[in-house]
Amino acid sequence: MSVTAAQGFTAAGIAAGIKENGNPDLALVVNTGPRRAAAGVFTSNRVKAAPVLWSEQVVKGGEISAVVLNSGGANACTGPQGFQDTHATAEKAAEVLSAAGGAAGGAEHSAGEIAVASTGLIGLLLPMDKLLPGIEKAAAELSPHGGEKAAIAIKTTDTVHKTAVAGGDGWTVGGMAKGAGMLAPGLATMLVVLTTDADVDSPALDTALRAATRTTFDRVDSDGCMSTNDTVLLLASGASGVTPAQDEFAEVVRTVCADLARQLIGDAEGASKDIRIEVVHAATEDDAVEVGRSIARNNLLKCAIHGEDPNWGRVLSAIGTTGAAFEPDRLNVAINDVWVCKNGSVGDDRDLVDMRFREVRITADLAAGTDSAVIWANDLTADYVHENSAYSS
Amino acid sequence: MSVTAAQGFTAAGIAAGIKENGNPDLALVVNTGPRRAAAGVFTSNRVKAAPVLWSEQVVKGGEISAVVLNSGGANACTGPQGFQDTHATAEKAAEVLSAAGGAAGGAEHSAGEIAVASTGLIGLLLPMDKLLPGIEKAAAELSPHGGEKAAIAIKTTDTVHKTAVAGGDGWTVGGMAKGAGMLAPGLATMLVVLTTDADVDSPALDTALRAATRTTFDRVDSDGCMSTNDTVLLLASGASGVTPAQDEFAEVVRTVCADLARQLIGDAEGASKDIRIEVVHAATEDDAVEVGRSIARNNLLKCAIHGEDPNWGRVLSAIGTTGAAFEPDRLNVAINDVWVCKNGSVGDDRDLVDMRFREVRITADLAAGTDSAVIWANDLTADYVHENSAYSS
Repeated sequence: MSVTAAQGFTAAGIAAGIKENGNPDLALVVNTGPRRAAAGVFTSNRVKAAPVLWSEQVVKGGEISAVVLNSGGANACTGPQGFQDTHATAEKAAEVLSAAGGAAGGAEHSAGEIAVASTGLIGLLLPMDKLLPGIEKAAAELSPHGGEKAAIAIKTTDTVHKTAVAGGDGWTVGGMAKGAGMLAPGLATMLVVLTTDADVDSPALDTALRAATRTTFDRVDSDGCMSTNDTVLLLASGASGVTPAQDEFAEVVRTVCADLARQLIGDAEGASKDIRIEVVHAATEDDAVEVGRSIARNNLLKCAIHGEDPNWGRVLSAIGTTGAAFEPDRLNVAINDVWVCKNGSVGDDRDLVDMRFREVRITADLAAGTDSAVIWANDLTADYVHENSAYSS
Repeated sequence: MSVTAAQGFTAAGIAAGIKENGNPDLALVVNTGPRRAAAGVFTSNRVKAAPVLWSEQVVKGGEISAVVLNSGGANACTGPQGFQDTHATAEKAAEVLSAAGGAAGGAEHSAGEIAVASTGLIGLLLPMDKLLPGIEKAAAELSPHGGEKAAIAIKTTDTVHKTAVAGGDGWTVGGMAKGAGMLAPGLATMLVVLTTDADVDSPALDTALRAATRTTFDRVDSDGCMSTNDTVLLLASGASGVTPAQDEFAEVVRTVCADLARQLIGDAEGASKDIRIEVVHAATEDDAVEVGRSIARNNLLKCAIHGEDPNWGRVLSAIGTTGAAFEPDRLNVAINDVWVCKNGSVGDDRDLVDMRFREVRITADLAAGTDSAVIWANDLTADYVHENSAYSS
């Protein structure tokens, strides 16, 4: 499982002391080759953390030899010092990994090929006196079985670590993710590292990754907020020697991303319900996504779902704020497959809706075309308020 | 105070039995003349309640002789029957008021000049067997001192009724409002009736009302949700015989709207903080409003404010999701006048921020121009979740 499921990767996860509670907070993922192809997608927030600004440049080169990830601090809104700290992190990793021998691939590592990802509070400088020695410690523990520990070390408010794996004939894609709040279109406070031993070049990785994130991580909207730190990386070692067909490869990458995205929603902060919003019969896919997001972000509806109240009026109210093509008196809405709203008015008996289970399905039929989209969201709970009102104190 | 502060208006508020708990639920406001000029603005939600569709047509005629308002049911998403019910409400009011004599102006009333406004749950037909007799009862109680009772009868989850008054030399503008949730740009679940005895024609009323709502009700964003029923009406009786200068009139209308808007925020469902968000040094007013709304709708920030946590990172994160002109490393943010973020990074000590009081001021300096805007919002609380998860049950 995780980032070491594919051949050609080692990983480690350790406690560097960045988190005051002593929990694991530093992860390393190393590509031991033979190739080091990579692609990445990043937050679309215009306020980007230092590690995002750094890693965007690294990815442009098309090669990543290692990824350093830390929890316990986002290194966002930290000014020039924050960027220098990210740079120093990559330099330190390059130095340590170049000297590390076999577990680090036995090759040279340069800072310009080392991606950095951080998660935690915004506006605090990282304790570099702990982080830099932590890289040495992690490098000493690199192992082809270290994926699980790496996944654990990137947790923040996550209650469980998240990994996934899928593959084709002779090749594998594995990955890890963290994220429990701020999930939103644009991939909010989500760190994801995917690895594969397929023999695929950077442009092909980029195509597969962008297609996969567009319909998975970009359609997860836990609370409408978008992070400064979102990072999704895909690294290829080529160690399997197999070059799959692009379509097949892209589909496996999408499968792993969908699996991880579903796990993120299932572990969203304070949530008691996972809401699957499917918009059907839209004039365009963009319309379907716009309507889905509007429903996903409606606080009143999210409260109603928490209260197991099939309040379809709030769904219509959310649809009505969009610019999508539809006629109000042709809208239909089902909650858990009961069509409680038909033709914009009262439909089947709302008492037929059973909402006891964690997963709730909302279907919005725009009666305007043939396109569709699925957006995942969470309910809004007192626990969410509690977690996020006390988070930094 | 309220809708009977200006000369030429009578009003009443009674319990018609629409609400099961027996509280007042039906209000009448009658323009006794000599003129009946009127203007209105309505929800921009494309899913509009029957009374909105009706009243939009009434306002197009430029004259309103009376307004019937009910709480206890929104008459939204109720199909053709819902529209027939609104029509029947106006017909009944026209019949009753035409026969009512002095308190109703002693003149003929036609249904086409009677506006209707409703608020309450979506998707339920109104109990017309109670509403129509209620109109007779209300007409019998019409009084030049009935404004207060009318304001009380339109409450839903409001904890207090809301009225305001202002005026010029010899003329007055008064008004009432209801609304405690779903406040958002586009005037969500807000019913407002303003009256004036100034001698002003419909086009001048329309100009003044649109200018006033644009910078008041449209900049109140309690929870990002937009209603199907928002209605703001301005009625002029001309009874003072005074025609103020347009600028002076518009400013007084704006003052009354701002007063009511502030009261709405102060009574938002479950809120413990009123948040005044001022965006300054924006390149355009539109930029300032876009940034203000993005901050106003950020659930994570709203939770932090609830927890009295000056979490400026969440402000920057919200700004970063907009398309406004700014450079991330030139952004400044003050919370209660302490500049906790300077040049996109750590500013003054956050411990200096005192957040014990209900009003919290956030200032976002985009350092990109000379325009500004103020948006009002509320915090996100467990009480909000509770009220809105149990609302319809």
